[in-house]
Amino acid sequence: MKGEILSIGTELLMGELTDTNSVYIASKAPALGVTIQRMSQVGDDLNALAAAFTQALGRADVVFSTGGLGPTQDDLTREAISLALGEEMTVDPALLEDLEAWFRYRGAPMPPRNKKQATLIPSADVIPNNQGTAPGWWVEKGGKLVIAMPGPPGEMTNIWTHQVSPKLKGRVTGQVIITRNIKTTDLGEADVAERVARYCESDNPYLGIYAKHDGIHLRIIGRGATEEEARELMRPVEEGIVAIMGPHVWGYDDDTPERALAQALTEKGLTLATMESCTGGLLASNITDEPGSSGYFRGGIVAYSSEAKIANGAPPEVIEAHGAISPETAVAMAEAARRGLNADIGVGITGVAGPAEQEGKAVGTVFAAISLESRVKNVALRLPPRRAVVKYRSVTTVLVELCRLLKDL
Amino acid sequence: MKGEILSIGTELLMGELTDTNSVYIASKAPALGVTIQRMSQVGDDLNALAAAFTQALGRADVVFSTGGLGPTQDDLTREAISLALGEEMTVDPALLEDLEAWFRYRGAPMPPRNKKQATLIPSADVIPNNQGTAPGWWVEKGGKLVIAMPGPPGEMTNIWTHQVSPKLKGRVTGQVIITRNIKTTDLGEADVAERVARYCESDNPYLGIYAKHDGIHLRIIGRGATEEEARELMRPVEEGIVAIMGPHVWGYDDDTPERALAQALTEKGLTLATMESCTGGLLASNITDEPGSSGYFRGGIVAYSSEAKIANGAPPEVIEAHGAISPETAVAMAEAARRGLNADIGVGITGVAGPAEQEGKAVGTVFAAISLESRVKNVALRLPPRRAVVKYRSVTTVLVELCRLLKDL
Repeated sequence: MKGEILSIGTELLMGELTDTNSVYIASKAPALGVTIQRMSQVGDDLNALAAAFTQALGRADVVFSTGGLGPTQDDLTREAISLALGEEMTVDPALLEDLEAWFRYRGAPMPPRNKKQATLIPSADVIPNNQGTAPGWWVEKGGKLVIAMPGPPGEMTNIWTHQVSPKLKGRVTGQVIITRNIKTTDLGEADVAERVARYCESDNPYLGIYAKHDGIHLRIIGRGATEEEARELMRPVEEGIVAIMGPHVWGYDDDTPERALAQALTEKGLTLATMESCTGGLLASNITDEPGSSGYFRGGIVAYSSEAKIANGAPPEVIEAHGAISPETAVAMAEAARRGLNADIGVGITGVAGPAEQEGKAVGTVFAAISLESRVKNVALRLPPRRAVVKYRSVTTVLVELCRLLKDL
Repeated sequence: MKGEILSIGTELLMGELTDTNSVYIASKAPALGVTIQRMSQVGDDLNALAAAFTQALGRADVVFSTGGLGPTQDDLTREAISLALGEEMTVDPALLEDLEAWFRYRGAPMPPRNKKQATLIPSADVIPNNQGTAPGWWVEKGGKLVIAMPGPPGEMTNIWTHQVSPKLKGRVTGQVIITRNIKTTDLGEADVAERVARYCESDNPYLGIYAKHDGIHLRIIGRGATEEEARELMRPVEEGIVAIMGPHVWGYDDDTPERALAQALTEKGLTLATMESCTGGLLASNITDEPGSSGYFRGGIVAYSSEAKIANGAPPEVIEAHGAISPETAVAMAEAARRGLNADIGVGITGVAGPAEQEGKAVGTVFAAISLESRVKNVALRLPPRRAVVKYRSVTTVLVELCRLLKDL
């Protein structure tokens, strides 16, 4: 099945917003048997939009759109689809009632202009949106599909996962494409490429190597008439890569370091506490991104100054002797967090996020420590001197190291 | 002058790469008098590519392309432009000599397949690329322009800055486009649209209304023969909107809540401390995203349990009487953070991030408090029941409320 993606909104054409929705859809479509052949960003102009739908429907079997489903006069996706298909929009009473209920729940009357979010055309079914006021449209006409989804990425991915993907799965014709993503740490891109070179010559399964902020990803892409056939082709490649990469593998597919950590901690029944300086709360925030983290995360301290570190249990003599930016202080912070918050594992991070060097240490210098009752693990990093990079690379590295340590326990 | 952007490469259609080149060009083009009307991502298929160039040239005066200028058989941008314009590619001896010199300098012989990077068509001039092997093409034919640039973002932006932008500047036949972005909080999209409806009818300046995670943005876009003329046109609209939206305005253009807060705290010489529960460290992390935050941020506590709240100074009788998820506990946390970390201002956030309700309160229920020596401000939120949304919307709202409070001090 051939697919196209239309991302709608003048702000996309002004360079004020990066179109991540298309990237998401493009990454998910192949496994459903849809090959994306073109993606376009179009502004909030009715005629240009209607023409874009008409052209895309001329080339593809299914057109995914995101954006333009809001209540304002700039939101013209419904109008454009109606114009392209020659159908008339009418207000759907059940949809209107849902929308009014949404506003009632939030304690506000529905503004009149939101009414157009309750419209449909004869060929359109509603795609409910439980996270916003904009329902989507599932349109079938003349053997073609238009799937219109809202623009906010959270709403779009939720609708994709729970409604669009399951409904599309039943219609696969043609080849299925499956991907398997193996996530590794510690080694550089060229080094990884060297080690798995034997798998790089094949077209199916195909192996792609990508440098991401949580390490090097090895993506295997397999094609087959069925999912099983594609998986069978990919199996030996995956097994070979995992054997070669060994302890450098920390996760697969949608695994995030915080999810891998959640699994490992839950399995072992261990609890965690943090004391962080240069990462400023990002470590705790990433840990608590995981639903259920209250089960193993005791809490965290953001100790941006030496006084705060000391007030929370780091011995002043360690900081005096070695400096606030030192492996010894990282260990002291990890132990203070573990004891002070009554956890099994404590993590400490200290370093220089910038803009200026500190204690003669360059921006990007980071020391972390993981403290357990019986042992301590040190991590030293030298990161590119950009504040955001120092923060997220430090946090990702520490989370991945924690996972690896837990595996060995 | 109307423009379109084509980003070329099958990996874009697999969702493996985010097209940041288009965003860059789209952000730079308006000030040169080029209005981008469409952006597209197309795969490495000669016929599809040639058709995309033909269509774009039918609609626009200038077509920018990025990618597909490499040496491999997948790199088909030159071939597609030649096909679309009906011209023949020939090797340019001077270009070939440059390319061979590039390889000599790096101590390697030029692989034969790189020879196609030295080709031109009669309508094309070379755009030299001193950072890679792929020179660009500047093509003029029939009053239309095609500007083909290499795909690696560093090479593309370098070529844009030093060659494309200066050359285009001399040709502005149309208008300069200026934007001004006014950021507001508290009100919904439809409500804002209602209030500023009087400015929505105009085409120049044009007013766009966008729902973002830090509130509703009102973007004024003005066109004029010169920058001054455009700004003059926009001034009354900006003044009118600021008057209507009043205290709901919290920032402009590139302002982020944490930057606005940094300015406000630095101006007033005040310090800040936090105690957060459902936001799990994201508040502290956002505050410390700002360089120089160590000057006003005393530190933060991530108190994910009632015990942690109490251990850090929140009175147990308040939590017992009102529950952990209550306005009273939010105030107790804010005051405990302020006193415990010796700051001028304390912030407390408690709420239900999900997945399950707590104390009979629904996911998305959030109470925050801002505590100063002399006063307390409460914030109550009812957010969509998604963990990530609860976290970032709570944090953004609290930061914006802090800015508004500081303004009034």
